[in-house]
Amino acid sequence: MSSEFGRILRISVFGQSHGRAVGVNIDGLPAGEEINLEELQRFLDRRRPGKSPLSTARKETDVPEFLSGLESGRTCGAPLCAVIWNSDQHSSDYAELRDRPRPGHADYTAAVKWGGRADMRGGGHFSGRLTAPLCVAGGIAKQFLSRRGIYVGAHLDSVAAVSDDPFPLYPTPELFEAVAAKPFPVLDDGAGDRMQEAILAAKRDLDSVGGVIECAAIGLPAGLGDPMFDGVENRLAAALFGIPAVKGVEFGAGFRAARLRGSENNDPFVMAEDGVRAETNRAGGILGGITTGMPLVLRAAVKPTPSIGRPQKTVSLSRGEDTELAIHGRHDPCIAHRAVPVVEAVTAAVLLDMLLEGNHGTF
Amino acid sequence: MSSEFGRILRISVFGQSHGRAVGVNIDGLPAGEEINLEELQRFLDRRRPGKSPLSTARKETDVPEFLSGLESGRTCGAPLCAVIWNSDQHSSDYAELRDRPRPGHADYTAAVKWGGRADMRGGGHFSGRLTAPLCVAGGIAKQFLSRRGIYVGAHLDSVAAVSDDPFPLYPTPELFEAVAAKPFPVLDDGAGDRMQEAILAAKRDLDSVGGVIECAAIGLPAGLGDPMFDGVENRLAAALFGIPAVKGVEFGAGFRAARLRGSENNDPFVMAEDGVRAETNRAGGILGGITTGMPLVLRAAVKPTPSIGRPQKTVSLSRGEDTELAIHGRHDPCIAHRAVPVVEAVTAAVLLDMLLEGNHGTF
Amino acid sequence: MSSEFGRILRISVFGQSHGRAVGVNIDGLPAGEEINLEELQRFLDRRRPGKSPLSTARKETDVPEFLSGLESGRTCGAPLCAVIWNSDQHSSDYAELRDRPRPGHADYTAAVKWGGRADMRGGGHFSGRLTAPLCVAGGIAKQFLSRRGIYVGAHLDSVAAVSDDPFPLYPTPELFEAVAAKPFPVLDDGAGDRMQEAILAAKRDLDSVGGVIECAAIGLPAGLGDPMFDGVENRLAAALFGIPAVKGVEFGAGFRAARLRGSENNDPFVMAEDGVRAETNRAGGILGGITTGMPLVLRAAVKPTPSIGRPQKTVSLSRGEDTELAIHGRHDPCIAHRAVPVVEAVTAAVLLDMLLEGNHGTF
Amino acid sequence: MSSEFGRILRISVFGQSHGRAVGVNIDGLPAGEEINLEELQRFLDRRRPGKSPLSTARKETDVPEFLSGLESGRTCGAPLCAVIWNSDQHSSDYAELRDRPRPGHADYTAAVKWGGRADMRGGGHFSGRLTAPLCVAGGIAKQFLSRRGIYVGAHLDSVAAVSDDPFPLYPTPELFEAVAAKPFPVLDDGAGDRMQEAILAAKRDLDSVGGVIECAAIGLPAGLGDPMFDGVENRLAAALFGIPAVKGVEFGAGFRAARLRGSENNDPFVMAEDGVRAETNRAGGILGGITTGMPLVLRAAVKPTPSIGRPQKTVSLSRGEDTELAIHGRHDPCIAHRAVPVVEAVTAAVLLDMLLEGNHGTF
Repeated sequence: MSSEFGRILRISVFGQSHGRAVGVNIDGLPAGEEINLEELQRFLDRRRPGKSPLSTARKETDVPEFLSGLESGRTCGAPLCAVIWNSDQHSSDYAELRDRPRPGHADYTAAVKWGGRADMRGGGHFSGRLTAPLCVAGGIAKQFLSRRGIYVGAHLDSVAAVSDDPFPLYPTPELFEAVAAKPFPVLDDGAGDRMQEAILAAKRDLDSVGGVIECAAIGLPAGLGDPMFDGVENRLAAALFGIPAVKGVEFGAGFRAARLRGSENNDPFVMAEDGVRAETNRAGGILGGITTGMPLVLRAAVKPTPSIGRPQKTVSLSRGEDTELAIHGRHDPCIAHRAVPVVEAVTAAVLLDMLLEGNHGTF
Repeated sequence: MSSEFGRILRISVFGQSHGRAVGVNIDGLPAGEEINLEELQRFLDRRRPGKSPLSTARKETDVPEFLSGLESGRTCGAPLCAVIWNSDQHSSDYAELRDRPRPGHADYTAAVKWGGRADMRGGGHFSGRLTAPLCVAGGIAKQFLSRRGIYVGAHLDSVAAVSDDPFPLYPTPELFEAVAAKPFPVLDDGAGDRMQEAILAAKRDLDSVGGVIECAAIGLPAGLGDPMFDGVENRLAAALFGIPAVKGVEFGAGFRAARLRGSENNDPFVMAEDGVRAETNRAGGILGGITTGMPLVLRAAVKPTPSIGRPQKTVSLSRGEDTELAIHGRHDPCIAHRAVPVVEAVTAAVLLDMLLEGNHGTF
Repeated sequence: MSSEFGRILRISVFGQSHGRAVGVNIDGLPAGEEINLEELQRFLDRRRPGKSPLSTARKETDVPEFLSGLESGRTCGAPLCAVIWNSDQHSSDYAELRDRPRPGHADYTAAVKWGGRADMRGGGHFSGRLTAPLCVAGGIAKQFLSRRGIYVGAHLDSVAAVSDDPFPLYPTPELFEAVAAKPFPVLDDGAGDRMQEAILAAKRDLDSVGGVIECAAIGLPAGLGDPMFDGVENRLAAALFGIPAVKGVEFGAGFRAARLRGSENNDPFVMAEDGVRAETNRAGGILGGITTGMPLVLRAAVKPTPSIGRPQKTVSLSRGEDTELAIHGRHDPCIAHRAVPVVEAVTAAVLLDMLLEGNHGTF
Repeated sequence: MSSEFGRILRISVFGQSHGRAVGVNIDGLPAGEEINLEELQRFLDRRRPGKSPLSTARKETDVPEFLSGLESGRTCGAPLCAVIWNSDQHSSDYAELRDRPRPGHADYTAAVKWGGRADMRGGGHFSGRLTAPLCVAGGIAKQFLSRRGIYVGAHLDSVAAVSDDPFPLYPTPELFEAVAAKPFPVLDDGAGDRMQEAILAAKRDLDSVGGVIECAAIGLPAGLGDPMFDGVENRLAAALFGIPAVKGVEFGAGFRAARLRGSENNDPFVMAEDGVRAETNRAGGILGGITTGMPLVLRAAVKPTPSIGRPQKTVSLSRGEDTELAIHGRHDPCIAHRAVPVVEAVTAAVLLDMLLEGNHGTF
């Protein structure tokens, strides 16, 4: 088992970058739910490359074809399988990479694990292309959640050394929509401009940059999640590290909490009109692995794209000697901005899965 | 399912802080393996409180009694169940917390989830006390791994604003042992002294501090882990967030990678005598979710202990009004240093589980 | 993972027959539920040996001690661990069986799998003794189900060539209780007498007999279970084959259905006062893996006890040659009647687990 | 989770009978293994209908298209997704069945579970059509197993009251092939003729018949499987009940064992040239859930096809009243003979999954 996650809602991603298709099979979706295909396409388009000089010039259509599970626009209780056919492949670009693994990329580990048997053209099953079907699943989950008053949104928290504003204490659905509608997903457009400059500067240098994505979910009931290994944090982290290039995940104040005192990090409880609230949200909406009812807030760190044009040291696996590599072809100088909807997708899918389990603590 | 993790090796933790016992059931241990009980006890003692003014004065014995799975000092193929009997409980300390949830603690989420039905005395099943049986499991895993040349070690990376040195590029078993033998688990004892001062300063202020733990595993084969959702990062993160107070997990350069350029973050491959190595290890020994053969390096952020003596704002759940809370009783001003062996334990357990799956990629 | 089952409700059985204790850890029980310990003990006593010449003369107390999860008589949300301490062990009886595996017993497969490292005294972890903690879990599940109008009952369908009456089309809770209160669990006491004679005849011949158990569950909602591999049949069968000596499981008409025509096997639907009913129940309350609302009916075949006093051909593993074996010690000439509550226990546990998942098909 | 099984090898089946396609996603296949597509097609053709008056006249092509996981004829480590496009659908045949559920069919339970939202045309996701992709997975598993000397074969054990010979004590690969090559999969062709007559007689009566399939696996290592709930029987049964219409599963002597004495049912061990053997195989190659090294033998009972032409009593769900139903359209008078390769497929898939786990008992 590798390219699957979820318990009630099982999401299985398949495909290789230069294979016939990429796709997703979703088992366990509630039946009778409408899927708004236009809304889904708009969500998928946020991830799609080829729209600006900030990302690869590869054209990907990213239009899913539904093979099962969807009848007359509604889920029918059977597993939903959707595929996105591949095209615009330049596999020849990758021929030499079989022997000379790209630093920072899965080329080497795939070679160790599967020898020459892996289909690593275009990154194969490790490619960012696999986040397209992941967004099909997550985009569907987002729709189902929003009908129950639960909204998931994200923005670019930082790129290189440039930081966006953080989400406010209480983000709103309107804020999520506003960010999603922007060509560059930030709260502060000035910061967004500087981030784009940093990306283009890296591109000019045949280099790349990373970034951090902040994601929030609002409208969640308090009491979701179970203690120890089945908390909201465990399950979100397990899935978020499945997004290619994610190297860190934190909730609420996260790593910064480690530098605070208890009196600074604890969120004071206060009575509000609609019940207990916290005055601050350093917990990120989670205490003991269980939701507090405050917004869930997490951040995922995305490393700089490993495929860069600058010459790099590597080895020839066949000859067993040091060599050099300069990667040509069309690569993203930054994938963090395109990963924003992917983080939303994974977050939404995990939360829907947990909600589908029901509040079995009390049945 | 909540207090369990693992696939081949299933580790189930049970018990409440002030119940009859805490314990662990381990299903799937290889048979015929010796468990060195003295070595295990030394490992458990590293976590045990009551040894210095840095931690709670509670006396916990932490001596496991084995109910099954161990015969004549060796595992026998059947599930291994070990219990640690509880004692030295002052449950009266916790009576008022039922109504007035401690900020930053699971009191509130447990109250929402289970109403008054949860046994939250001493933190109940959310207590750090549950990390004792977790260390039984992890201590056993560490022994099994070390017999196969795989070593797991950790140190305090930081407390409050004080940082230790990072692990060197190639940590050794001897280094791990040296840190483990210290009363305060750091590489740089000067930094350790300053950390302890920070903890004692917080204690004097009736406050607490957090910290970061860095953990490494050496001797792992390259090729361990599967793509996307079943990688080494996914599975380690899923379990590490089960340690109470952990709010962030990162691998290799982690969040710092997001600030680097690709040319800085990529680890150049070079030929060494024993095969392919990387000149640096910003990947933390993992590319595409799969081990590279370089040391696996991760960091976990531990928030400051939420139970502090300073008066804090909270609410009375029964009266639905704002109130104040000053927690008495014996609490740790910092748990990060005691969490060092716990992070080792969880890391070792996850890695053993993954190794027990075999290299099914090729069978 | 081996001695565990369940998805939301995880039941882990541990212990060896002649070890310190046998026990069970139950993760995922709903919180705040009362456990009636007297009722539980009465249930456990149905399985307990030493009550008549029909079973082994071993005295087993079978009184569970609760280590966690139970406070003031109610579940508290944390995993519930219960142990039954072992006593009355005559381990010397088993010394020679290490070398000369009993035909029909797990001695040989344990020897192959774990060499001499398994603790096979008294059958070790394969012993029928392990069904005692299983009954703790199942007895608790039965209580929780009955409070929601769901009742599970069973009787001995046959022993050797003697058959009991089948359950009526609509068994009642009163019928289940009446059978459970009998010293020999049958509907037709005349058949029961003949079964007991068959058991005693086998005992006189230093031999043993098998039997079939029929189990029913009433009050289940229609619509429980999911298609294909997650149906009620799949999950019940997966767990029922965990009861030692079970070699067959069937639902409704089961194997007899294979001899019927469609017109005979199909259950005609009719309108009743309370909705759709079936006139017959050859489906055993399950169509397409999903409950129909009719009583769920299953049968489990229990093979004759492999440990018999008659001389049997076997091999000496150490000398690699044919030899003979006559097993002494105290063995049951039949375990089918004692397995009746065990089948109830497993059935109840699986059904509770499925109910705790909620009707996620529609959420 | 519903239409999935397996632990290391995850097999997810999707599609509805009259949807766009049916298919399977297989995650966890070993990499670098050749898939012989001609051999696979021959296997799929054994299940395919439309070849004789014994089965439905529907034409199904059953030629899989591989979307991922297969490159240059070999598995590449990534999940393998294969689809079979649907065609030849007469959905209008099913319009009336929405309101009048067929007795013995999942129409009713699907209506309860999902209301009118299920796509039940042609049986929807409950259709026998879903066994086509299951056979793609199982056919691949059979190839991988046979390269390691493990062979899986099956025959029709009985149809209605007509019985075939049982497999001999030691079935051979040649015997499996010989049965597979026959137009009607039996050992004794005379019995096969009588079975076919029984099927055609039922067809003439607008009725149907059921049957039993016996399946064996040879070449398995001894020691496969784990105690209690993770034995070979548990895992095979859990998957076999996923085949539509299977209502009973037994191993070795199965239900007949319940009528034997221990001295008759125990298989005596003897020394053979190549190690320990059993003189008989009433255990079906499994003791304590673990393989003995003798042939694994199981039987699955298949109920008669519920869709029959004879008028049957049912209800109108919309009007809440009794009514009658005579099913037209093309239905199989028997599916047991077509289920023979399906039972092989599921058995092979489960065994490959268990083998891929490795002998983690000893690592």
